[in-house]
Order: sequence, then structure tokens, then C-alpha cells
Amino acid sequence: QVPRGNLETIHHRALVLAQVRKWLDGIQFKEAFECMRKLRINLNLLYDHNPKVFLDHVETFIKQVDSVNYINLFLTELKEEDFTKTMYPPLELSDAPERLKSDGKKVDLICDAMRTAMEKINAPKYCLSILTSHVKKSPPELGTALQGIRELREQSSEHTGSNSVEEALKYLLYLVDVGELYDHSLGTYDFDLVLMVAEKSQKDPKEYLPFLNQLKKMEHNYQRYSIDKHLKRYPKALGHLSKCGPEHFPELLNLVKDQSLYKEALKLYPPDTQEFKAISDAYGEYLIQKHLAEEAGLIFFRCGAFQKALDAFQISGNWKQVLCAAAELHYTEDKLASLARTIAGKCIEKRKFGDAAVLLEQYAKDYEEAILILLEGTAWEEALRLIYKYNRADIVETNVKPALLEAQRNHLAFLETHKVTFSRHQKRLSVVRKLKEQARNELQDLEAPHGPESDLFSDASSMVTASEASSKYSHSNSRISARSSKNRRKAERKKHSLKEGSPLEDVALLEALGEIVQSIDSLKGEVHSLLKYLVLFGYDGQAQELQQAFQETLHSVEHSLPEIWSPALQPFPASPVLGPSSTANSITAAYNQQKWTTPAVQDPELFIPPKLNRSIQWKLSLLQ
Amino acid sequence: QVPRGNLETIHHRALVLAQVRKWLDGIQFKEAFECMRKLRINLNLLYDHNPKVFLDHVETFIKQVDSVNYINLFLTELKEEDFTKTMYPPLELSDAPERLKSDGKKVDLICDAMRTAMEKINAPKYCLSILTSHVKKSPPELGTALQGIRELREQSSEHTGSNSVEEALKYLLYLVDVGELYDHSLGTYDFDLVLMVAEKSQKDPKEYLPFLNQLKKMEHNYQRYSIDKHLKRYPKALGHLSKCGPEHFPELLNLVKDQSLYKEALKLYPPDTQEFKAISDAYGEYLIQKHLAEEAGLIFFRCGAFQKALDAFQISGNWKQVLCAAAELHYTEDKLASLARTIAGKCIEKRKFGDAAVLLEQYAKDYEEAILILLEGTAWEEALRLIYKYNRADIVETNVKPALLEAQRNHLAFLETHKVTFSRHQKRLSVVRKLKEQARNELQDLEAPHGPESDLFSDASSMVTASEASSKYSHSNSRISARSSKNRRKAERKKHSLKEGSPLEDVALLEALGEIVQSIDSLKGEVHSLLKYLVLFGYDGQAQELQQAFQETLHSVEHSLPEIWSPALQPFPASPVLGPSSTANSITAAYNQQKWTTPAVQDPELFIPPKLNRSIQWKLSLLQ
Repeated sequence: QVPRGNLETIHHRALVLAQVRKWLDGIQFKEAFECMRKLRINLNLLYDHNPKVFLDHVETFIKQVDSVNYINLFLTELKEEDFTKTMYPPLELSDAPERLKSDGKKVDLICDAMRTAMEKINAPKYCLSILTSHVKKSPPELGTALQGIRELREQSSEHTGSNSVEEALKYLLYLVDVGELYDHSLGTYDFDLVLMVAEKSQKDPKEYLPFLNQLKKMEHNYQRYSIDKHLKRYPKALGHLSKCGPEHFPELLNLVKDQSLYKEALKLYPPDTQEFKAISDAYGEYLIQKHLAEEAGLIFFRCGAFQKALDAFQISGNWKQVLCAAAELHYTEDKLASLARTIAGKCIEKRKFGDAAVLLEQYAKDYEEAILILLEGTAWEEALRLIYKYNRADIVETNVKPALLEAQRNHLAFLETHKVTFSRHQKRLSVVRKLKEQARNELQDLEAPHGPESDLFSDASSMVTASEASSKYSHSNSRISARSSKNRRKAERKKHSLKEGSPLEDVALLEALGEIVQSIDSLKGEVHSLLKYLVLFGYDGQAQELQQAFQETLHSVEHSLPEIWSPALQPFPASPVLGPSSTANSITAAYNQQKWTTPAVQDPELFIPPKLNRSIQWKLSLLQ
Repeated sequence: QVPRGNLETIHHRALVLAQVRKWLDGIQFKEAFECMRKLRINLNLLYDHNPKVFLDHVETFIKQVDSVNYINLFLTELKEEDFTKTMYPPLELSDAPERLKSDGKKVDLICDAMRTAMEKINAPKYCLSILTSHVKKSPPELGTALQGIRELREQSSEHTGSNSVEEALKYLLYLVDVGELYDHSLGTYDFDLVLMVAEKSQKDPKEYLPFLNQLKKMEHNYQRYSIDKHLKRYPKALGHLSKCGPEHFPELLNLVKDQSLYKEALKLYPPDTQEFKAISDAYGEYLIQKHLAEEAGLIFFRCGAFQKALDAFQISGNWKQVLCAAAELHYTEDKLASLARTIAGKCIEKRKFGDAAVLLEQYAKDYEEAILILLEGTAWEEALRLIYKYNRADIVETNVKPALLEAQRNHLAFLETHKVTFSRHQKRLSVVRKLKEQARNELQDLEAPHGPESDLFSDASSMVTASEASSKYSHSNSRISARSSKNRRKAERKKHSLKEGSPLEDVALLEALGEIVQSIDSLKGEVHSLLKYLVLFGYDGQAQELQQAFQETLHSVEHSLPEIWSPALQPFPASPVLGPSSTANSITAAYNQQKWTTPAVQDPELFIPPKLNRSIQWKLSLLQ
């Protein structure tokens, strides 16, 4: 026989991989493993080739390989990457077995499966491999690994012949950074273990011994607290510190504040203790700083810090809880009345007239002011109830009637303004639509299509309609004062510009028109109530006038809906544009017809006619 | 010259009409009129040929024709019909002058124009024509015509030579039905005129004289009332009767009730009179019969019938006005308390717990009951306010805490149920969509298109998906009691069937899913409030559990939205389907892709993902 040459060691990789795959499919892990190791094929393929089969045969794998070193090799080489997708793609795509969902947990999955199998087969034998499986997890389970070494030490006196503790620790230090392992050994609170790790490390004993000696002198819980704190395990530190007695409470409170561990700290003390109260107090202050005044109020209140709770609730606007806190503080009637007045003032600012009236009536005992506030808020029913409750019929003449008449005038003016704006927007909308259609038709006639048409359209339309940008389309504000702040907010979130000639002017107009419809429709309840009280006080004429004006406005708005929100705007064309006789041109034409109203807008609601509330019977049959 | 034969009188109509048109265009009315009259061409053509020209030249027309008889002939022949469209169409369509908008008022328009012109030219001369113009109007202005005759009679003493009154009346009787004219003459309250008409008529004097004599004996206003009543002119009758003094008031009230003339009657008396009160009382009863209890209450209240007002407001559920009426009736405290309890009971039935609590607290002075009702309505803030207001901290332990814990459990159960239903519906939706697409593809493969495809689709889909109709899709009711009545109403207005295999099952599922999203989203405020009060009373664990469950539900719902309301469902495709390279097939394909979700449904909102309310900060940072 001729001596073998170098050539023999050159293998065609594809052929090798095919063989490895065959072995793996045949559950011949041993052969596969040895071949792969020899030819430096990444060991991840053992799993990646067919994850399900591998996981089902983990024990077989371990028994076949039967080598701690080999298993360690396999475990250390594991990566999240799927090597059948990157380094070793299968020859035919259909060959690939169905992938398991990985969720980036491949390594953890294998480590856990391997460890379970090894512990079942022979835990002492695979001790180092088990350690490896802990270390490879993300995050590494160093604590558990150290725990394993400790158990090993305890058992080592009994069983001889098992891997020595020394060896295991050495191996661990080979796998993991020394500093990290030292910290984790500290975390076991086992000083022997710490010393073992320290000794195996390159650490200078002068560095760690004084610290360890200092710790050893400490009381048990305080010792553990100190270790936890050193390791920045603050929630654990907190638990140990809380067991060190009241003399350490200031230290605990500082820790809580420094690390914002309020929730954790509160769980450590029963609610009726001084400590619970002190932590709550600090928590409340913290929450106020974080602009969570209401939650601060809850925390203050339940720990009995009622003055602070009162302040916090006042900041957050929860006036009912303010009054509860005031009651707990045994406020005198005068003090309560003055508090109520203050809060009522804030409620009025926020246009919460009903709340203000309750405060003034029930706490400040100022019935008259309460009634006037209700009238300001056009809460006729409630105002009248208080008038009769306190027998103040005089207010009807002096205030109720003038307020009713003023409200009637305001409503008429509001309707008029909105009707005018509505018809102006409506006219402009039809102009803009015609311009856009013209522009598109002209473009289609002039140019051969050579790109996505929608871009051309929007350019063209802005070109054509960018005429003099007049300011007359500024959104008119309602004259009804109650509505002004709402309107302002609405105006702020308006996304499209009503400026004449702006590219999405038609969308902006649709939006503005929709808002007018909604704001008119939403008046139904208010108008109904106003009509009733106008009639009650004999202002039948004014009531009739308002009812008619409102009815006319509603009618004209309703009649305009089909034109403004024409069916062409809506998602589904009424008549099908496709059929046996349709051609590319006919379909395109039909499609374009719809298209003039389909700019790139994110609010499909805008293209659906606003729904009117038909459940409210706002009209009085009296007045018809 | 040979004597002329019959042949000469035969005219070719088209030639004649052409000549008439020429005359009319040349404002030669006289020639046109005579020719038309002679050849029996309908005289409406005088106007219809060119309404604008005719109206502009009415005076010329009258002056040219210059004959009362001819004008009468013209007026009596007028009809609403446009004769250029029916009997005499123009030779060339383009010849037709632009039509005036008629709104079916052609005859009235001509009559008024003619009368104005005739009165200007020579009123006495055209007296009969003027009468004709009144009679031809719709409705005929017989009153005005008779008025004209009366004026004529007054003038006839002065001017001689004008048409005599006799002649005019005779002419009128020739135009109009005698009975009608007699009634209208009565309506003038002019007995001379009545007698004149009666004499000219065929009426038997024995018939009308006794009635007239009886009327003559009556007091002036009562006489007019009797005539109006005879002529069924009830509002006028009412006006005259009201002037007849209080002894006739019972008769008036009967008339009001018989003819439901309440509104008209109330205007005839000042509000502080006995009569106003009596009519109001009757009006109120009438409104109650018409199931308009609240309006009845207003009418009773303002006329001082407070007991009836109280009953009416109680029927209508306006409890604040009930209390006002009770105050007017000077109810004792006991009576008021008992009334308040009754109304509170009704409020509770309607789940208006806040209202019930106000009634119980402020009128029945039963603070405890008020608080319990508020707890039932989960109005924690208000309940606590009352507890502190009345210093009843004991209720916190006995009722508030158990109620909070129960509410927490209810919410968890509600979330669980809805989550389960949601995912069941979602799964079924994707099944249904796949089935429909399959069915469509199969159909498209099998059959050549030979009709509107949409019909085939819906048939096919119902055929395929009409599998076993299981009842497990019955809409599950919420376990939160407060929501049950709402849900019931919602279920009633559901339009599409969730039954498996029903043709619009996908739409029904979309609807059901949308409702679940809305009902979960709408819990935010309630959950926020519950969380706060759970924390306030130290139930941090339960609060945390609820917060987490709610957050998970919201997240999972939110994540499902894009799949359920996929962009393909929405009005506007994300990418344009049209372009230079598009063919009929590619467009059709793109269009069909969208189409599987476009059945003939009237609710475009269903196809737009429901909007979640992101403005509510429902989470407590305390619990995170």
C-alpha cells in the first residue's frame, strides 16, 4: 500500500454535509459529531438541521457522544444563529424541515434540555457540562452554577471519585470573568465559597479580606443587606435591611428614596405602622414631583397624611376627595366654606358649573351663588330645583328669565354663524373638486402616462388652486361661550389647511364641514332643554323662533350631506365597475371618477358622512 | 271672381303654427290671437311659445287684443300644461327658447300679471276679466272676487257706464259653483252681498232666509263666530267668539277641545286670566293623552295647576320639575320625603343612581340609603363624599370595601368573557374570509364571466359557508350589570346575522368585534376610578391584578385591529392599482382583492377600525 497523501484529507464540503445530514436523520449523533469536529463544521448544525428531532433525542445524543469534553465543546459553540440559513443552506429548499419558532431562545432551549437529560443520566459525571449549560444561558445563571458547586462540596465528603470541587471551580473560572463570579459568590452569602473563588482568582487578598472580615462581624440581616447593596441588588437589600430593626429605618428610608423603591418598601411594613406612614409620605412627595398629584393624594390619604392629601387632591382637581380630606382634618364650617369657594372658583374656570354649584350650595351654603353659577352653565333644571328648594322665586325674575332669553339669542347667533360658514365651505368644496378634476383631465390629455399618476395629480391640483390665499377661511369661532374652549382644542388638532389652494384643501373642507355638522347636531339636547324652559316662563314666541331656526339649520345641513359626502367618496361603489364588457379604459375611467377624492389621507372617517343623532326628540310639539 | 270654396278654410297646421310663432316673436299678439281663435289653436301657446316675452309684454297684449271677451277666453283656457311640449312641439329643438322654471304656478303667474296690467290700464273696463283672473287662480280667490263686486257696488252710484254689479255677479256665477260662491259671500259678513248672491242663485229663499235672519239678530262678534263656524273656519271663529264675553267661554272651550285649537286659544287671553288657565288645563290633558307628558307638565305648571304638573312630570321622569311642583304645592317634609323615595325608586330602575342619591340625601334625608345607592352605581367618589359629609366612616368597612372588591371581580369576569368572545369571532372571521375567497376563485376558474360578478359571489359564498348553523355565536352578555340594558339595546339594532354560514357572516363578525372593542375601550374611565379606590383602601394586589388584566386585554385587542380591519378593507388602497403597465386583468385582479370584503352593506363605518380613546390616562403608575 502506498502511504496516503495530503489529498485524502481534502473533502468536498457539500458531500460531507450531505453525509452529516444523513447521519443526523438516522439519529447517528456520534458519527455526525466526530466528523463535524474533525472537519470543523459548526456544531450548531447538530441542532439546526432538525431542531425537533434533536430535542426529542437529547438523551440519545448524550449517551452516544458520551464525553464531557465533547458536550462542553458543543455547548460552548452554541449561537442563536440558525446555521441552516446562513452557513449551511440545504441543497433543496423543500428539504428543510419545518422550523420551530425560535423567538431568539434557541441556546436557552438547548441548555435546559441538555441539563435535564444530563441530570437524569448521571449528574456527577456531567457536572462540568451542567455548569457549562448554566453559564451559556442568557443571562448566565452564575448563582445557580455556584450553588451547584456548593452542593458538590457538601457531597464531596460522602462520595469519593466524583469530580472534585476544585476542578469544577477552576473550570467555571475558565468559562466566566473572575470579577463577575466573585460578585455572584458574594451573592450566595456563603463566605467559604467567596474565599474559594477569591483564592482561585488572581485577586489580591489585601483587597478582599478586609471587606470580608468587616462583613463577617455584622449582624446576619445587616450583613446580607450590605452584600446586596454592594452588588446593587437594591430590592433584596431593602428586604434584609427591613429586618434590622427600627434603629436602621432612617437608612432604609434613604435607600428607598435614592432608588425609588417605594412600592417594594411599602410591602415590607403593615399599613398601621409608623414606618409605613413614613414611606408613604416620601412616596407621595415623589409622586407629586413626578406630576402624579392624584396618586400622591391617594398615598397620603391612606397613610393618614390628610393635609398633604388635601393639597395633592386640590392640585389634581379631585374636589370630592379634597372634601373627604378636609373632613378628616376636622375643618370648621367657616374653613370648609372658604375651601369650597376656592375649589368652586377652579371648577368654574374649567366650566364645570354643576360641580361648582354643589360646592357652593352644600359646603359654602351660598345657595344664591350656586343658582347663578348653574344659570351661567345653562343648567336650567338644576337651577330651578335649587330655587324651589330654597324658596328663592325672586331669582326667577331677576336672573332666570334674562339668562333664558340671552341663551336663546346666543343659540340663534350660533346657528346663523355656522349656517353661513357651512354653506361657504360647501360652495368652496364643489369649486375645489371641479378644479381638481379639470387639472387631472388636462394632464391626462396632455401627457402620456409615465409614472404613478397620483403624484402628478396632487402637484397639478396645488398648482391650479394655489390662487390668492385669502384669510377668509379662518375657522369662525362659536359665539356660545361654553363652546369656545372646546373649539379651540378642535382647531389645534386640525391637520389639513383650509387655505385656498392648499393641496388638501378639499380634505380640510370636508373636515371642517363634518365638525360643523357634529357641533350643530350636538346642540339637540341643549336646545330641547332651553325650549322647555322658555315655554315654562311663557316665552313661546322666542321658543318658536329658536325651534324653527334650529329645524331649518338641521334640515339644510341634512340635505347637503349626500352632495358633500357623495357616494363616490365612499369605500364601495354603488354600481360595479367590472363586468364582461369592461376594458382597461372603462375600468380606469370608473376608478378615476372615484379617485378625485382619494388623496393620501390617514383618516378614512373623514370620507364617511357624519351620523346625526336621531334618537333625541328635541322638538316641542307645543311649538309646531 | 269665383266664390270661395270650402277648400280655402283648410290650412296646413304646421304652416299656421309657423305663422303664429312669427307673429308672437314680432309681438303681434292681435294677429296671432285672431288666427288662433279662428283655427282653434289652444290659446296657451300665446304664453308657452315664449313665457318671458309674454310676461314682459302683458300690457301690449291687452292693449292689442283690446277685448274683455277675448281676454276672458284666454284666461279661461289657461292650463298648467306646457303646450310647446305636448300639443305644439317646435319644429327644431334648438328653436325652443329657454324655459322659465314653472314650479306648476304658470296659471297663477299669468293671472296675476294680467290683473296687474288690466288694473293699471282700465280697471272698470276689464272688471269681468279681473274677476276671471281671481277665479282662475288655485285656490280660486273667491273672497277677493266678491270683495271686488262689493267695491263695484259702492262705486256704481258714482260712476255710471261701468259694468253693472248685476252683470259682474252673473258672470261670476257663470264661472263658479253657486254653493261655493254663497259660502264665500257669507264669509265677507256682508248680508247684502249674501242676498245678492242668493238671489242670483237657484237657491230656495225658504232655505237661506231663516238662517240669515237668525244671524242678523245676533251680536256682532257672535254673528261672525257663527258664520265662521258654519264655514268651518275654526281659528277665525275662535277669535270672534273670544270677543263675546265670559258667558260664551264654555262654548269657546268646547270649540277648542273639539278642534284642538289650544295654541290658537292661548294666544287670545293674557296668561293671568281664568280663561288662560282653563284652556291650559284642557291643553295639558290633551297633551297627556298624546303621550307628551313633559310638555303637559310645562303647560300645567305655568298656569298654576301644580298637582297636575307634578303628576305629568312624574310620568315623564323629569324629577327636578316634580320637586319644583311639590314646592309650589307646599308639601310637608314628610310628604316630600315620601315623594322623593318614590321617584328615587324609579331612578334606580333606570339605573340613574346619581339622581336617586340626590333625592334620597336632600329630600328623604336618608343619607345611608343614598350612599348605598351610589355604591350600587359604582360612583365611588360621590359615595365617599357623602360618607365624609355625614361622618359615616362605618359604611366604608360594611359596604364600600365589599362593593369595591365585587366590582373588581366583575370587571375581571367581564374582561375574560369579552376576550374569549373576541378571539373566537376573530378566528371565525379569518375562516369565513378564506372560504369566501376560495369560493370566488373556484367560480372564476369554472365559469366565464357572463354577468355582474358580485351576485355570483354572494350566492356562492352563502352556498359554501352555509354549513351547520350552530347556536354558539349567540352574543354573550356582559356580566357587569350596569351594562346589560345597553347591551340589550345594542343587540336589538344588530342588523346582520352571526349564524355560521349566513351570507353576511363576515360583516356580522366585524360588527360584533367592533362592539367588543368599543365596550372594552369604554371601560377606561370606570376602571381608572375603581383602581384609585382599590388603592385608597389598600387593595393594591387586586388593583394590580385588574390593571394588568385590562392592559393585556387592551393590548391584545389593539394588536388584532390591523388584521381584522385590514387595509384592503379600507376605502383607499395603499398602493395605486392603476398605472401605465396596467391591463384590464391586472386592474380587475387588484380590484377583486379588495372586493372580497365589499358586500352590499349600508354601514361603511363597519369597515373602518374602531377608534380607541387614547386621551384617557386610565393606568395608575403606582401599580406598574
